[in-house]
Amino acid sequence: MPGLVFILNGPNLNLLGRRQPEIYGAETLADVEQGCRSLAAAEGLEIRFHQSNREYELIDWVHEARDVAQGIIINPAAFTHTSVALLDALHTFEGPVLEVHISNVHKRESFRHHSYVSLRADGVIAGFGTEGYLLALRRMATLLR
Amino acid sequence: MPGLVFILNGPNLNLLGRRQPEIYGAETLADVEQGCRSLAAAEGLEIRFHQSNREYELIDWVHEARDVAQGIIINPAAFTHTSVALLDALHTFEGPVLEVHISNVHKRESFRHHSYVSLRADGVIAGFGTEGYLLALRRMATLLR
Amino acid sequence: MPGLVFILNGPNLNLLGRRQPEIYGAETLADVEQGCRSLAAAEGLEIRFHQSNREYELIDWVHEARDVAQGIIINPAAFTHTSVALLDALHTFEGPVLEVHISNVHKRESFRHHSYVSLRADGVIAGFGTEGYLLALRRMATLLR
Amino acid sequence: MPGLVFILNGPNLNLLGRRQPEIYGAETLADVEQGCRSLAAAEGLEIRFHQSNREYELIDWVHEARDVAQGIIINPAAFTHTSVALLDALHTFEGPVLEVHISNVHKRESFRHHSYVSLRADGVIAGFGTEGYLLALRRMATLLR
Amino acid sequence: MPGLVFILNGPNLNLLGRRQPEIYGAETLADVEQGCRSLAAAEGLEIRFHQSNREYELIDWVHEARDVAQGIIINPAAFTHTSVALLDALHTFEGPVLEVHISNVHKRESFRHHSYVSLRADGVIAGFGTEGYLLALRRMATLLR
Amino acid sequence: MPGLVFILNGPNLNLLGRRQPEIYGAETLADVEQGCRSLAAAEGLEIRFHQSNREYELIDWVHEARDVAQGIIINPAAFTHTSVALLDALHTFEGPVLEVHISNVHKRESFRHHSYVSLRADGVIAGFGTEGYLLALRRMATLLR
Amino acid sequence: MPGLVFILNGPNLNLLGRRQPEIYGAETLADVEQGCRSLAAAEGLEIRFHQSNREYELIDWVHEARDVAQGIIINPAAFTHTSVALLDALHTFEGPVLEVHISNVHKRESFRHHSYVSLRADGVIAGFGTEGYLLALRRMATLLR
Amino acid sequence: MPGLVFILNGPNLNLLGRRQPEIYGAETLADVEQGCRSLAAAEGLEIRFHQSNREYELIDWVHEARDVAQGIIINPAAFTHTSVALLDALHTFEGPVLEVHISNVHKRESFRHHSYVSLRADGVIAGFGTEGYLLALRRMATLLR
Amino acid sequence: MPGLVFILNGPNLNLLGRRQPEIYGAETLADVEQGCRSLAAAEGLEIRFHQSNREYELIDWVHEARDVAQGIIINPAAFTHTSVALLDALHTFEGPVLEVHISNVHKRESFRHHSYVSLRADGVIAGFGTEGYLLALRRMATLLR
Amino acid sequence: MPGLVFILNGPNLNLLGRRQPEIYGAETLADVEQGCRSLAAAEGLEIRFHQSNREYELIDWVHEARDVAQGIIINPAAFTHTSVALLDALHTFEGPVLEVHISNVHKRESFRHHSYVSLRADGVIAGFGTEGYLLALRRMATLLR
Amino acid sequence: MPGLVFILNGPNLNLLGRRQPEIYGAETLADVEQGCRSLAAAEGLEIRFHQSNREYELIDWVHEARDVAQGIIINPAAFTHTSVALLDALHTFEGPVLEVHISNVHKRESFRHHSYVSLRADGVIAGFGTEGYLLALRRMATLLR
Amino acid sequence: MPGLVFILNGPNLNLLGRRQPEIYGAETLADVEQGCRSLAAAEGLEIRFHQSNREYELIDWVHEARDVAQGIIINPAAFTHTSVALLDALHTFEGPVLEVHISNVHKRESFRHHSYVSLRADGVIAGFGTEGYLLALRRMATLLR
Repeated sequence: MPGLVFILNGPNLNLLGRRQPEIYGAETLADVEQGCRSLAAAEGLEIRFHQSNREYELIDWVHEARDVAQGIIINPAAFTHTSVALLDALHTFEGPVLEVHISNVHKRESFRHHSYVSLRADGVIAGFGTEGYLLALRRMATLLR
Repeated sequence: MPGLVFILNGPNLNLLGRRQPEIYGAETLADVEQGCRSLAAAEGLEIRFHQSNREYELIDWVHEARDVAQGIIINPAAFTHTSVALLDALHTFEGPVLEVHISNVHKRESFRHHSYVSLRADGVIAGFGTEGYLLALRRMATLLR
Repeated sequence: MPGLVFILNGPNLNLLGRRQPEIYGAETLADVEQGCRSLAAAEGLEIRFHQSNREYELIDWVHEARDVAQGIIINPAAFTHTSVALLDALHTFEGPVLEVHISNVHKRESFRHHSYVSLRADGVIAGFGTEGYLLALRRMATLLR
Repeated sequence: MPGLVFILNGPNLNLLGRRQPEIYGAETLADVEQGCRSLAAAEGLEIRFHQSNREYELIDWVHEARDVAQGIIINPAAFTHTSVALLDALHTFEGPVLEVHISNVHKRESFRHHSYVSLRADGVIAGFGTEGYLLALRRMATLLR
Repeated sequence: MPGLVFILNGPNLNLLGRRQPEIYGAETLADVEQGCRSLAAAEGLEIRFHQSNREYELIDWVHEARDVAQGIIINPAAFTHTSVALLDALHTFEGPVLEVHISNVHKRESFRHHSYVSLRADGVIAGFGTEGYLLALRRMATLLR
Repeated sequence: MPGLVFILNGPNLNLLGRRQPEIYGAETLADVEQGCRSLAAAEGLEIRFHQSNREYELIDWVHEARDVAQGIIINPAAFTHTSVALLDALHTFEGPVLEVHISNVHKRESFRHHSYVSLRADGVIAGFGTEGYLLALRRMATLLR
Repeated sequence: MPGLVFILNGPNLNLLGRRQPEIYGAETLADVEQGCRSLAAAEGLEIRFHQSNREYELIDWVHEARDVAQGIIINPAAFTHTSVALLDALHTFEGPVLEVHISNVHKRESFRHHSYVSLRADGVIAGFGTEGYLLALRRMATLLR
Repeated sequence: MPGLVFILNGPNLNLLGRRQPEIYGAETLADVEQGCRSLAAAEGLEIRFHQSNREYELIDWVHEARDVAQGIIINPAAFTHTSVALLDALHTFEGPVLEVHISNVHKRESFRHHSYVSLRADGVIAGFGTEGYLLALRRMATLLR
Repeated sequence: MPGLVFILNGPNLNLLGRRQPEIYGAETLADVEQGCRSLAAAEGLEIRFHQSNREYELIDWVHEARDVAQGIIINPAAFTHTSVALLDALHTFEGPVLEVHISNVHKRESFRHHSYVSLRADGVIAGFGTEGYLLALRRMATLLR
Repeated sequence: MPGLVFILNGPNLNLLGRRQPEIYGAETLADVEQGCRSLAAAEGLEIRFHQSNREYELIDWVHEARDVAQGIIINPAAFTHTSVALLDALHTFEGPVLEVHISNVHKRESFRHHSYVSLRADGVIAGFGTEGYLLALRRMATLLR
Repeated sequence: MPGLVFILNGPNLNLLGRRQPEIYGAETLADVEQGCRSLAAAEGLEIRFHQSNREYELIDWVHEARDVAQGIIINPAAFTHTSVALLDALHTFEGPVLEVHISNVHKRESFRHHSYVSLRADGVIAGFGTEGYLLALRRMATLLR
Repeated sequence: MPGLVFILNGPNLNLLGRRQPEIYGAETLADVEQGCRSLAAAEGLEIRFHQSNREYELIDWVHEARDVAQGIIINPAAFTHTSVALLDALHTFEGPVLEVHISNVHKRESFRHHSYVSLRADGVIAGFGTEGYLLALRRMATLLR
């Protein structure tokens, strides 16, 4: 039975590849999803890939994951720094949680140095570009094995 | 021509696998090196793998890397939080620098939340266990391609 | 004419009784609502009992309360610490506002020690478990008498 | 066998009802005690009701409670914010501790926002006027049942 | 070809003119919109005027503006102080952004002194009442000329 | 009877148009004065337009304004951040006070984020270039009407 | 009818003149009392002069003063910096309160720079040696006239 | 030979009695000077009484005092909180320095709680109204005796 | 002539051995006193051993020590962190002062990291269990020799 | 053509050699000027040497230097720590700026550790006594060569 | 079988007795070692006594102690405040760790108030002069018994 | 007898001239040494010129200087900000200590604004490029004369 992994993306990531390419690169979120799907298949994992600008949708997906998924990979984007609600939702999930940031947030404005999600995440990867998703997925495969 | 990558490890990592396994796991640093060598070969990379409890040795290796290496992967351990000298050394290196922490430092004591090395690193990976080294190496392969 | 009281619940409280019972206990939100309905009837009050993971729904309910309700009891959950918008909505309501937290937030992480809602609330009750709702309702009955 | 609950009151509360009624209301501490006695009887609890301006008397009562009481309700007044000694005394008591403040301290001067007693209390109630004592007593009855 | 300007309004502004008139004045948001439409016509600008209590709707409108509008005037209300997501959305917009606050936020509670939106805005106007919208629109006309 | 408005300018503004045009633009202070005079005439206002590098001259003009003027528009420049004396002078003036900054000070060094003058000003406008003077003057006309 | 003024002295002042004369001078507290009595007689005032190392005695004297005295002069000594209870007691007193410190506390350790009592005192005098008592008494005479 | 005392007054004090009488009272600075002259005569002291809105004039008077005066009484007004230059000037004066504030600055905005001048002053008096000048003068007479 | 040493114990230490043995161990204060008496005899010292929950009693004992004792060993317990009055009392004592804490306060809550008493103590010993008293007594014997 | 260098001195430096010689030494400012003139002649530079207690005069000299001088050496004295206006003036000057402090400000009070002028200065020299002026002049000669 | 205890000394302690005797006393480190050897013999303990200015040597000795020693006494000197690496090394040691400082670091500069080593040490002794080593050794004997 | 001066250089300075020339210039450390030797000869001084990436070597050289040198010039590089051990070593040296930084550290990252070495240095020179060494040497010549 393949494991199911939710890959969740926070606000403004729908514009990936179309805004500030010097920070975020030229790949779109669809490209990222495609890359994840290929690797997931190779790793024998199933994924659900979502993006929302709505904090509550991210929370609802985490709640849904409680019932059906074995792991969560999340790029919380701006909610990283402000959403205690998302942190609390993740606290209700019992499987592994991996946090991904495309850019190295530690080199940007100081308000981006603090992450509520890291207080729950098992691992954090930042500044690896969109390849960070793939590496997180590899790690998830290890953890779910 | 294969790229050469330095993989540098900071203080107390010589004890890996023999101390606090609940935080750092059961693998030794030799195991990590072995894993890196296998993956590097597969990726067509050459590696030099070092560990030291001496800040100056890490600095000297970074200086050496300036002349012979294309990339640096570093787990600075405790020096992460205290060594401006290591940061300054890394500033003199022009290739990609990736920072690895075995545990998720963001969930530990607050003095472990700040990293001087992150001010220079292109990417940071934390809490992925020793698999973090392998994922960093994959990323390095991408960057040096 | 019986007074009408809104009892509003913030994000993740839909999972009450199903997550982290060592913090939040085993009662579900439906149990809480049932308890409130019984007590409200005895006190001659009418209640509307809502939960949402959506900040805007809580705001909208507060706006609605302006027109139809005499008092608000609110467990803002994670929004306690982050939502100036909810505070501003409550500032537009003229009746009594009572704030309830199931756990004693003062003994948890430091970011849970500050409450925007307390800047408007007339009273705050924390760490009384789900009984806090009933005690707040008793107080509301006194205030609306 | 009825449970015994200590209800302890800190400095200046002997003036309740006679000072700053816009903050503290018009009831005297004797009124509060009377209300508590009535409710305690109804709940099958025995109470001892004390007030002191002396930190050591509050500490001594807590020590005494260790031997004879099942629970403590305390309005530490100004000692809330300054007395580590009272906190340490409460740490030696094993039954439930409930903290009461007549006014909503979170809306007053910032030095009133921190409570040493909350670091030990199981529950906190603030801004419910003198009714807070009664609600705390109800909660105590639940906890001692 | 007339320029198109989005005028966006954050949470609770739907109650403008009906709450706290000593702070916000007696004009409603419809009055403000009407005033803006008249001035825009005179300036040869087209406007879209929106209000929402939903952070994601504001984000979505900013995303929409990327494709169709030349400028954004925004009164982020409470989101001013808490929404990194809105800031990130505005960073993806390339035209001028002007920030409006009806009251002088610098004279209110200290948590209202910091604005995430100001980190992106080209100009900020605060404490000019609802006339601030008109003055921002005049400025926008200059900038788009 | 036309109202009289003082327009006061702080240190280094005598160099406007001749220094750092990438921040402050190419207009000189004489140009600004000219623009203000034209608009004032149209609005039926009289203005006195002053600039000084001397804190005491600005204070003395505020004192003078107490006797003869109905409103003050002030660009305090560097004194914004350091002069309690200027704040105290403005506290003695009873008419409206509007504060103007040519650049968006919120995007510059952090010591420029705090304004003593804002603690007294009725409105603040920043980052509107020299057009900020004109918009402030329009607002003043409204307030003095 | 002469006014009655309480002159209250905090902990360690019983040793005045016998400890650290380079800070506190050579006069004893009895000398100070004698000086105050002479001046009070000349000013037509009656005084009660107390010293205690016990916080509660100072509080009790303030409570007593509520009933019989028109003014309070207090040198709270070390309680200046730590006693919210004393501050709260003084808040219940309606006549003038003057605070005296023999040394200039602003030139000593930083924890002596903050005074809870100053939050209630009408006037503060520090660094005038024991003459500060006399000057406070003169001021009290003015205020009670 | 009578001692000579400089009594120096900082910015905005020329308006004393004409602004914010609820804070500063109804006496003018001329009244204060008159009161000081009478008391000085009685105490056998000569005074020079100055006021300026100019920091440099206060500094120059302190420099002048070095040659001709035995003591300085200073109400630095707003410069209290901002002028290191005035502090440095006072450090060059060897006689006693007494600092006077008409209002109790400790009860006002927090930026008024810090005084550079107190770092040099031998004594500080605040909140005694204009009588503070007279009491400081009495103290000066004692010190110069 | 044997030296006389006061050994003073602060609040809640009367419960030693009966509360939180995982922190404070199983010995009672009587056991500690007995151990000190034996060692003192061997060292040719006389001791007076006191405990109080009353800050003023500790102060009074320090005052008494001024006249009769050569040294003070003090475990201030909770007063360590809050009592400036006790610090001031110790400042009046001229012999050696040694501070003892049974547990290592540096590993506990952050408010236990600061000690007013350490600002006067000649030596501090923490985390040596009740043996810390004996070691302090040995040191005192050396100092008084 | 010799370069022209302004050497500017801030408040209280007119007293150099006559105040606090243990900090500032025995040389007068005239001595310093004489030394600078000799060295300037040897280096082929022309100097203008000014001192003022007036912030605006220093600003005006910086403005003047824009038109006629190639470099500025400045000892801002107390204005170092407080004058944003002086910083802004220096920002308008395009040649090299060197900052001199006679004493090592880093070993003095903490408010002397921050320098606004250093945010613009190309070099800073502190604690070299009056020789610091000469060394700065040598450096200026190098920079203007 | 006697226990083996490492006694480790940090940087600059090789100069003990030869530098700043007013802080550190006149005994040399050889004297200290001699005293420790005598007491260890009496207590039936074996010791290894080391000093180094090299952080890595201290780390290596701690690593060595893991294999051969039962306890560690360490005077980390300056590394107390800066070496996370030393803390991490000590975390790998399972026996008791006692920390010694010759002077009372709490009375010195504020950067000496924080100790990384105390986060691991079982006990801390400061300000007991070199006798602190002996007292720590006595305690170690108790702990290893 | 010529004086002997140690010129010590901290980590990464071996790369001078080969890294980040936009900050540090094009001269190598050998060039700097050559310049110093020439000037020292002219000034009648002898120098020893060292560089190390090892903190302990710098400490050992300072210890050596105690016996043979009259002065120390030190560019501590990154150790400036982190090495209390180096500060403590310098505290054991009794001759003059001058601190040199090639760049103006006050304009770089905030963690470079604090210098432990400045707490001991007699003078500090920053931002004068490598000429700073020569100017420090001139000053040293003056001090040793």
